[in-house]
Amino acid sequence: MSGCTFCRIVAGDAPATKIFEDDHLVAFLDIRPITRGHTLVIPKRHATDLDELDPETGARLFGFGHRLAKSMRRAGLTADGANLLINDGKAAFQTVHHVHLHVIPRHHGDTLRFAKGFVLRRPHDTERTAAALRAGLDRLADEERETTA
Amino acid sequence: MSGCTFCRIVAGDAPATKIFEDDHLVAFLDIRPITRGHTLVIPKRHATDLDELDPETGARLFGFGHRLAKSMRRAGLTADGANLLINDGKAAFQTVHHVHLHVIPRHHGDTLRFAKGFVLRRPHDTERTAAALRAGLDRLADEERETTA
Repeated sequence: MSGCTFCRIVAGDAPATKIFEDDHLVAFLDIRPITRGHTLVIPKRHATDLDELDPETGARLFGFGHRLAKSMRRAGLTADGANLLINDGKAAFQTVHHVHLHVIPRHHGDTLRFAKGFVLRRPHDTERTAAALRAGLDRLADEERETTA
Repeated sequence: MSGCTFCRIVAGDAPATKIFEDDHLVAFLDIRPITRGHTLVIPKRHATDLDELDPETGARLFGFGHRLAKSMRRAGLTADGANLLINDGKAAFQTVHHVHLHVIPRHHGDTLRFAKGFVLRRPHDTERTAAALRAGLDRLADEERETTA
């Protein structure tokens, strides 16, 4: 899928500020964020929509989205919540036809900022935002280690 | 959590048009649907938000949402796509504080109907809608059996 922007990001042929990567997934900052920290999680292997995505990869995708939403509440962004969204199919406003999960951090009282961000979708301080998200993921991992220790 | 509406639905103490149930999850029609077939998927065990939801139950929740989105494209609703959404936390517009995944079927060219549904959120023909969703799940299960046979 050389014509697919997200496949090019996976291959390293298109720029992206990645905050996580493993054998199956990549997570990177949305270049048109609704709020600061708005992240996309995608499978490395191309799947146009949920119909093409195998259940195992779906579980990994959603599983990381769950972790990311939790980590956004922690060090770095200290969000109060998040919206997790998949627009599946052109009819559902999917614009890049490679499955992607939006994870959008939210703060109490940000409704107007959210509405403004929805219209403007301007990038924020990219490197600092990515560092904050990575710090949240690290903090979550630390907490999990403490819980199981 | 006797004060929780969704816990009462799980316990059978509040009415709901269920389209799926297993040991861990219940899926039922949203009583204020944005589009016909708008379904909520919830864990049976109370979790206020994603921070409280264990990863295993999260995987089941998202996994069924994935199946449901696929099944909506099939017999019954013949949708062209779906929006999958979790509003996690009050800051993110979560109104019932028991984790729930919205799965909202979409059809090509339904943007105006979607916008209208977003404002009105009126129930459609509930029993027929539930039957259509169940038919889609059955069709998906049939397809999977054929693929593995």
